Amino acid sequence: MKLQKLIRENHLALLFQQGNFGLEKESQRVDRNGNIVTTPHPAVFGNRSYHPYIQTDFAESQLELITPPNAKLEDSFRWLSAIHEVVLRSLPEEEYIFPLSMPAGLPPEEQIQEAQFDNPEDVQYRQHLSKNYGKYKQMVSGVHYNFQLSTEFVEKAFALQTEYSELKAFQNALYMKLANNFLRYQWILLYLLAATPTVESQYFYEKSPLARGQLVRSLRSSPYGYVNSEKVVVNHDSLESYVESLEANVANGLLIAEKEFYSNVRLRGGKKARELLENGVKYAEFRLFDLNPFAPYGIELNDAKFIHYFLLGMLWLEETSGQKEVEIGKRKLYQVALEDPRTETAFRAEGEAILNQLLAMLEELSAGQESLDLVREKLAQFADPSKTLNGRLIAAIEEVGSYKALGAKLAQTYKAQAFERFYALSAFDNMELSTQALFFDLIQQGIEVEVLDENDQFLALKFGDHLEYVKNGNMTSRDQYISPLIMENKVVTKKVLAKAGFNVPKSVEFTNLEQAVAHYPLFEGKAVVIKPKSTNYGLGITIFQQAVKNREDFAKAVEIAFREDKEVMVEDYLVGTEYRFFVLGDETLAVLLRVPAKGQTVQLRANSNISTGGDSIDMTDQMHESYRQIAVGIAQAMGAKVCGVDLIIPDLTKPAEPNLSSWGVIEANFNPMMMMHIFPYQGKSRRLTKAVIKMLFPEIGN
Amino acid sequence: MKLQKLIRENHLALLFQQGNFGLEKESQRVDRNGNIVTTPHPAVFGNRSYHPYIQTDFAESQLELITPPNAKLEDSFRWLSAIHEVVLRSLPEEEYIFPLSMPAGLPPEEQIQEAQFDNPEDVQYRQHLSKNYGKYKQMVSGVHYNFQLSTEFVEKAFALQTEYSELKAFQNALYMKLANNFLRYQWILLYLLAATPTVESQYFYEKSPLARGQLVRSLRSSPYGYVNSEKVVVNHDSLESYVESLEANVANGLLIAEKEFYSNVRLRGGKKARELLENGVKYAEFRLFDLNPFAPYGIELNDAKFIHYFLLGMLWLEETSGQKEVEIGKRKLYQVALEDPRTETAFRAEGEAILNQLLAMLEELSAGQESLDLVREKLAQFADPSKTLNGRLIAAIEEVGSYKALGAKLAQTYKAQAFERFYALSAFDNMELSTQALFFDLIQQGIEVEVLDENDQFLALKFGDHLEYVKNGNMTSRDQYISPLIMENKVVTKKVLAKAGFNVPKSVEFTNLEQAVAHYPLFEGKAVVIKPKSTNYGLGITIFQQAVKNREDFAKAVEIAFREDKEVMVEDYLVGTEYRFFVLGDETLAVLLRVPAKGQTVQLRANSNISTGGDSIDMTDQMHESYRQIAVGIAQAMGAKVCGVDLIIPDLTKPAEPNLSSWGVIEANFNPMMMMHIFPYQGKSRRLTKAVIKMLFPEIGN
Repeated sequence: MKLQKLIRENHLALLFQQGNFGLEKESQRVDRNGNIVTTPHPAVFGNRSYHPYIQTDFAESQLELITPPNAKLEDSFRWLSAIHEVVLRSLPEEEYIFPLSMPAGLPPEEQIQEAQFDNPEDVQYRQHLSKNYGKYKQMVSGVHYNFQLSTEFVEKAFALQTEYSELKAFQNALYMKLANNFLRYQWILLYLLAATPTVESQYFYEKSPLARGQLVRSLRSSPYGYVNSEKVVVNHDSLESYVESLEANVANGLLIAEKEFYSNVRLRGGKKARELLENGVKYAEFRLFDLNPFAPYGIELNDAKFIHYFLLGMLWLEETSGQKEVEIGKRKLYQVALEDPRTETAFRAEGEAILNQLLAMLEELSAGQESLDLVREKLAQFADPSKTLNGRLIAAIEEVGSYKALGAKLAQTYKAQAFERFYALSAFDNMELSTQALFFDLIQQGIEVEVLDENDQFLALKFGDHLEYVKNGNMTSRDQYISPLIMENKVVTKKVLAKAGFNVPKSVEFTNLEQAVAHYPLFEGKAVVIKPKSTNYGLGITIFQQAVKNREDFAKAVEIAFREDKEVMVEDYLVGTEYRFFVLGDETLAVLLRVPAKGQTVQLRANSNISTGGDSIDMTDQMHESYRQIAVGIAQAMGAKVCGVDLIIPDLTKPAEPNLSSWGVIEANFNPMMMMHIFPYQGKSRRLTKAVIKMLFPEIGN
Repeated sequence: MKLQKLIRENHLALLFQQGNFGLEKESQRVDRNGNIVTTPHPAVFGNRSYHPYIQTDFAESQLELITPPNAKLEDSFRWLSAIHEVVLRSLPEEEYIFPLSMPAGLPPEEQIQEAQFDNPEDVQYRQHLSKNYGKYKQMVSGVHYNFQLSTEFVEKAFALQTEYSELKAFQNALYMKLANNFLRYQWILLYLLAATPTVESQYFYEKSPLARGQLVRSLRSSPYGYVNSEKVVVNHDSLESYVESLEANVANGLLIAEKEFYSNVRLRGGKKARELLENGVKYAEFRLFDLNPFAPYGIELNDAKFIHYFLLGMLWLEETSGQKEVEIGKRKLYQVALEDPRTETAFRAEGEAILNQLLAMLEELSAGQESLDLVREKLAQFADPSKTLNGRLIAAIEEVGSYKALGAKLAQTYKAQAFERFYALSAFDNMELSTQALFFDLIQQGIEVEVLDENDQFLALKFGDHLEYVKNGNMTSRDQYISPLIMENKVVTKKVLAKAGFNVPKSVEFTNLEQAVAHYPLFEGKAVVIKPKSTNYGLGITIFQQAVKNREDFAKAVEIAFREDKEVMVEDYLVGTEYRFFVLGDETLAVLLRVPAKGQTVQLRANSNISTGGDSIDMTDQMHESYRQIAVGIAQAMGAKVCGVDLIIPDLTKPAEPNLSSWGVIEANFNPMMMMHIFPYQGKSRRLTKAVIKMLFPEIGN
């Protein structure tokens, strides 16, 4: 496979660097001291039978957080951040996420519960693992890195090569080369990124095989991690031999299932390995990586980029490893794993040679200075082991006293950080807060989200086969198209509401100043509001709160209104207090009193930067039921499912009276700011985004 | 009742002049020579049991066209115009509307069919009239003028007066004064506006009571019109005596029903007169008016305004007529009706005195110069009878030869005029053509329409209790709110359609020039379209129809696109012809080939001024069914009920192939221009507005 030549001669450098990336991160729930907890997986995360983002791995305490695949690693990291924020804010107050791979504070084995899936087979499989390997080994956590080559690259490269006559065979060959070369050279990544130099002696049940004070590079990737019996041999010479030998291991009982084969690369494309032969390999999963405790989400973006370059390098190499080379790679991995992390590796020369080849490749691909710098930084770590992740980790453990104490300290720090901007989903902070709140709830409940357009606040949601689209957090398929069109036109809104029998302030419209002034006698002595027909920002509005008393004042106010619009309304002024009702379906879910803006940004709570330009006080429970019903009726008259209704009310504790002067509708809004209700300045928070989800996906239940 | 003083002292002049106005106009369907036809009421006008605008009066041939009430007379005239355009364009080719009150070309009496209502009582009542009065008298047509005082005026005036303690009693007194003074002075309006100086002798069955060549002012309002027997006496001294005496006439068999009482004023407020006592008078109907043949719709706007001033004058008068004065008025009416229209009236002095009082009133009300000019013009007609409507009519009859010939000639003219702008509803021509087409169909089918906002194309439709709102002719409650939001974002549209499995041209988005140019290798050698993400007007778009061949051309195109938007898309260019599919529900109703604009206004048909800026050719029947189904699927993927879909198609006669390069979706439009399909440049017209109505009101059927 002459991939270098093909890429070089056909300008495929850019496509070669494209692909899809997904991350899976395991970790233990612990208490503030780093002890693994024995509480059930939090119910707030919904059902593990479908949750796409928040799962459990082996144990009930062992979270598995999964990003969807993304074309950019940066986006996978945004997802990882978002999922972490959701989990950390949803955990019980006294629970944390342990940031190190090796478990600490292990409870007695009988207290460790296998993850409680609905499907009994899932539980039985874990019970089998408990028996065969002991529960403690299964508690080790790590990061899995999923990589898919650009399909466009694969198709173009196939069309240009002559070695393979079928696309699938070509694609399988690419992934086999990637997997085998990775297995051959994975020790390099281990040297650079390993972070499991030590563990509590309890982990080994009886006696630790390590000498007192002995440190290694990676217990997790050593034979003390969870590895298969040496009897399990899978042949990597071809995809066919790989599949057949894997099946043979299951058939002869060495493995209970294919998934018990703990390779650091898994080829993906079906439930069973044999499907790879039928359908072709879709992507590869790399399982080598220890949790990086200095990265709040277990892995640094730069390391993830470096891994990507490394994977490209494995494809770029002229050589293609077979079973022999894979075995060499495995032996080297074990050897490096048990080296003292404070010393140079025995294979430094090979490591440096491979990274120099990476540099050459990146230069040829015009991959940019950033990538070269990144690889050079790693290259330098062969000469100075203290610069590796292990080097930094060992120093930190020494400073704090134990790896458990370090883990507990970092776990507390990361949880506190996740609450700093409690109202936001930080990684998606250029979307509106309402959309961020909805996004948060969707991740929490396990509804698949896809950002269709970030600037436009456009999400696609999926639950099973049920697809929904949402814009701005509350614009959905449940509303009729005509409803927002009614609401965005004040005159039409009033006519529709009047027709439905609701009290709307009477108004007269004018198209020119003379006509309006000629009608002055109609308004003399009345409290009126004079306003442009279609502005929304308060411009050009004059209120005669007592009464308009002379023609000149009236004319001036009309003239000001005409500066903003070619139609002007003179409307009866209603006396009372304005409340915002949030209606969803046949229920008023929230009522807010908005104290008018004070011409400055109001800080809501000490550490937030939300501003509604005015104070907002939740009055949902205080508001008389009759008004809550009126707000629902108003929304329904306009055919709206989600609607903000502004009512003027003389006394919120007394029932609504039917006569016009006592109350009235001011406006209806099809994009009500849910954030005002979720994070009011004062009073109870109303999590409206959950109600939106319930409306869209009634099948989920509570 | 001291109304003058009350208005004067409380600045009620403006309110006094407000009110609601409705018009009802009867007329006969005739052939091109003015002969009344014996064909059934056209089925296209739907069912008379509910039709609010197009009814039949006594005979099957006798149209009754009804405007809804409007606060401005101008609006009632717009409705009258609209209803006439609908009727004239819907009549059989050889049928016309006769513009004169007295019937001409009367068929043998047995061929005249009473109007065929569903309700047998309606038919029986007409059969009773046929028996009692003869059918010919019932064929006379006229205009009824409905007037309602401003309720705000009535309420304010009531609050300020001391004579009445109940609002209802005060309101009834106002209407009684209006009715009685009208009956006292109605001869004045007759003198000025009468237009039935003659009739065919056939009308009188045996011998005409008129001398040979004798002309009168109004046969219709004379004892030769349809008047009750002299035995029928209804007492107007009070509303109570009015109701009781009317009921007595029915009880003793002089009238078969209350509605057989042919007064020139009917007080309205219930089905039976007694309800007036319970509910109060709601409005008054004035039935005096002959059709004005020189007005295409039977009455001139200026005459309607004059009538309004006259009615105000009847309220303004210090005197209030009782039964005695009503009787005087009736005798004067008969006398003036039979005067020679070429001569002065015997009551000139009284007429001039009343009109001078009208002038004084209008001055005091500051009603404006236009109203004074109008009344002065009428005042002058007392000195010169040739200036009255009759004067002009007699001259015209003489010129043409007979009133039947004049009627036939005008009928043809008016019908031709109604077709001049066949694509429009002229009176509502500042709305979009699609809305005008929908409006036309709604009037035709008898669905109540209310214009909520003319500039905003906002209509309220009502059929029974079923209310619907429509904007722009096709934005309705049937579409989901999210659908147009998807469609107005090209990137989201493509993602949604790709997700649903439709072929969309592949595209890549960029947020800056450098980034885009760096990705040039991805596009080299491909046919691509480079465009701003969200413009709709073709600005900033570059098409490399063959292939983009050098980086400089590509960079230039990207730079041009970035001038229009902060995001730019580079999209695969599809080869084929673009067609517009109009989808409604689960059906493609129309397909159009749009030849691109030629930089000039294209005249569609000789006498139209519609322009789509390009030729459009209907291809609905030619398009392969597979593509019609694809368009439906695309609309459904976006949750859209009404949708314009632009497809690129290699060959419309062959089935759609699944592979990407053969066809593709370009765009979806939530406000598809229905007019393009209704009036294509070439090919069959598709009346899509009827399909919209059927979607909204499935209960109406076809």
